[in-house]
Amino acid sequence: MNLNVGLNSTGYLANAWKYRSGDRHDINDPAYYRHLAEIAHKGLFDAVFFSDHPALMTEPLGRPFHTIDPLILCTALAAQVPDIGFVVTVSSTYNSPYNFARRVQSLDIVSGGRLIVNIVSSFNPNVAANFGSAALPPRNERYARAIEFLDLAKKLWSSWDPRRESEVPSDRFWDSTSAAAVDHDGAFFQVRGPLNVPRGPQGHPVIAQAGASDGGIDLAARHGEIIYCNILSKPAGKAFGNKVRERAVSLGRDPSGIRIVPGLVVILGESRKEALRKHELYSGTGSEDGLLERFVREHGLDRDGFDPDAVLDYERFVPDQNRQQAVGMGLGLSDLLQHEKLTARQAVRRSEGHHRLLLGTAQEVADEMIDLWEDGTVDGYTLQPPRAPDDIIEFVDKVIPILQDRNVYPRQYEGRTIRDRYGFSYPA
Amino acid sequence: MNLNVGLNSTGYLANAWKYRSGDRHDINDPAYYRHLAEIAHKGLFDAVFFSDHPALMTEPLGRPFHTIDPLILCTALAAQVPDIGFVVTVSSTYNSPYNFARRVQSLDIVSGGRLIVNIVSSFNPNVAANFGSAALPPRNERYARAIEFLDLAKKLWSSWDPRRESEVPSDRFWDSTSAAAVDHDGAFFQVRGPLNVPRGPQGHPVIAQAGASDGGIDLAARHGEIIYCNILSKPAGKAFGNKVRERAVSLGRDPSGIRIVPGLVVILGESRKEALRKHELYSGTGSEDGLLERFVREHGLDRDGFDPDAVLDYERFVPDQNRQQAVGMGLGLSDLLQHEKLTARQAVRRSEGHHRLLLGTAQEVADEMIDLWEDGTVDGYTLQPPRAPDDIIEFVDKVIPILQDRNVYPRQYEGRTIRDRYGFSYPA
Repeated sequence: MNLNVGLNSTGYLANAWKYRSGDRHDINDPAYYRHLAEIAHKGLFDAVFFSDHPALMTEPLGRPFHTIDPLILCTALAAQVPDIGFVVTVSSTYNSPYNFARRVQSLDIVSGGRLIVNIVSSFNPNVAANFGSAALPPRNERYARAIEFLDLAKKLWSSWDPRRESEVPSDRFWDSTSAAAVDHDGAFFQVRGPLNVPRGPQGHPVIAQAGASDGGIDLAARHGEIIYCNILSKPAGKAFGNKVRERAVSLGRDPSGIRIVPGLVVILGESRKEALRKHELYSGTGSEDGLLERFVREHGLDRDGFDPDAVLDYERFVPDQNRQQAVGMGLGLSDLLQHEKLTARQAVRRSEGHHRLLLGTAQEVADEMIDLWEDGTVDGYTLQPPRAPDDIIEFVDKVIPILQDRNVYPRQYEGRTIRDRYGFSYPA
Repeated sequence: MNLNVGLNSTGYLANAWKYRSGDRHDINDPAYYRHLAEIAHKGLFDAVFFSDHPALMTEPLGRPFHTIDPLILCTALAAQVPDIGFVVTVSSTYNSPYNFARRVQSLDIVSGGRLIVNIVSSFNPNVAANFGSAALPPRNERYARAIEFLDLAKKLWSSWDPRRESEVPSDRFWDSTSAAAVDHDGAFFQVRGPLNVPRGPQGHPVIAQAGASDGGIDLAARHGEIIYCNILSKPAGKAFGNKVRERAVSLGRDPSGIRIVPGLVVILGESRKEALRKHELYSGTGSEDGLLERFVREHGLDRDGFDPDAVLDYERFVPDQNRQQAVGMGLGLSDLLQHEKLTARQAVRRSEGHHRLLLGTAQEVADEMIDLWEDGTVDGYTLQPPRAPDDIIEFVDKVIPILQDRNVYPRQYEGRTIRDRYGFSYPA
């Protein structure tokens, strides 16, 4: 079972910071993230994950979720913490492909092959406003750009390969024919190359991807190796995985190089009841009624006729593919409701922050994690701890040993690179 | 005396690699640069310097000079080597100001205030070809863009300052009024902000700058704190320093925040004669006649009438301000010849790789370094070792102790940040 863990800010849930240990200035302190990465390393996580927006959300009642640039932060962490990998989020809409290809290949080299790049197309107009006067491009254009961005990056990543060197005469420093221009001339980019960073220890960084809109699935099918997504139930997960793999096959790609590693929010208790109570607190709703009220509000339901114990109609919850906000994040719930008959009272306990929510004892949580993994619905999880460091420590202390005892999780780091550890092939 | 040292590739001089220790694959090995940085740390250098072009020069007879991205490499080195600073070169023409401001502020935070950013406008058409189909903008436009780039970056660097926070009520995570949009709307850039990285340990990174063309001097006068340049003699150095400071004053800036830290190539010998011989070898010319032949060729002189012992006319050597190539690099020689009467035979021993060349024993070199420093012509030097690691080791072992004995150089690291160590004020 592959496990990654998200390390942004004070943890994944916006309101859980009131219940965490630590100082609020942690979020801008590199030593804090080093501490979190060391805890994750103790838990033998494959990688730590930093989501990112290049913009500061300034809601007075919120908290900054994306601060120190993840490319820089993870480079420092790679020099400080061994073995563990790094999922670094980069926008394909707001970076140039040459700088992107060079910097991430540099980090893959510096880290000894421990980089996963999470490509996002950026859906937030606040991000667009930091990169010029032009409006955010429409979703289709952003995904078309993302695909060409990675097509081109792959050309650049292999454009200088010292393995192509012939024997170099003693009066020459190198065989310059080991590098060749890429001469890319596409719809979005014109880049000559070659890259001035050679092929790295992984050939190129592993590519992660998170969108589940139609454009997102296309990108996943074409370039995604690690697919981060919202999977709230087994049937929904099977349907999602099949959709991505079928799209890959239709594009002529071998789907065996795809890993489904959805987000997962775990809240542990000595009993399920304690975990339910923590959920009410960490979510900021305070009670089950509060959870239901939030559900009504967030989905624009009619408050008067609302029956929390009536089965929900999934069609009511399908997100508009044309909405501004990320589509994929909204699909988890409608997929869940399509495959399971659930009331609102049940549904509010099945996800938090759009991700699958597991509430209970460490044993119960481990059982549920193994359930979707052992039949191949998922290849692993991206843990999104409500509170950092508290919920990472708790997970490492209580759940990891159970997974090890069940022989689904390693007892030490294996393999040299992320490709080794995830069983990915190396690019030719 | 402030000292930085350049660490690119196998050393500064293209042909000296034949005489160095180490393997040619060093140039893509992060462990090699760590080793160099540790030697520099032993020598108490203020900073290590990486020049950069985002392009691979594929001359069969040359060697790659810019490989691993310096922003990434220096982030890793900052996590591995204490105290020492990092001069990271970034193109203002081929980066977006928001990403630039965020990434370098992130590195300043991660390194605890040890970042110097060297802003270059990029003069090479090979670089332009990696960033689209547009030609390289004309020099004036590039420098105008560089100035606005830094104007804007400075706004972003101070746009989120936790020191502006009022007391935060216990039910809130932060005082969001500590961050404010910058709403920059200029000739080149429109950026809303605020930056999602707070003010760093230095307020913002120290700004280095290298151009000595008219546009370069304007940029230096407006934004430059550390001025990297070619100064081949005392009178030329005084004239250059005065020019930059006078331009700063004319722009209303206090010139006391400017440090002149020219490049310096040192070749040591047990005797001056040995150093002269090493110069002939490291330059790839093989002999004094070879040095003179190269001089004739590089400056397009008439071979037939050439007298190596005739005094040179400086006007013949003034670079065209409109030439494609960097203008500043060519100014050193004409400035030298304007202030000193020199023959070609003398001139070829005064510079190498466009920088001032010091040839002789450690004692002779230290004397010449102190000569320009003690009367304020320069504030220090950026050592460009012909061979890395060999010439860095030799300098640290032989010249640094003399500088220390002469009480012009520290015996331990002092100050927390580069601003402390260079005596710069902190931005308000």
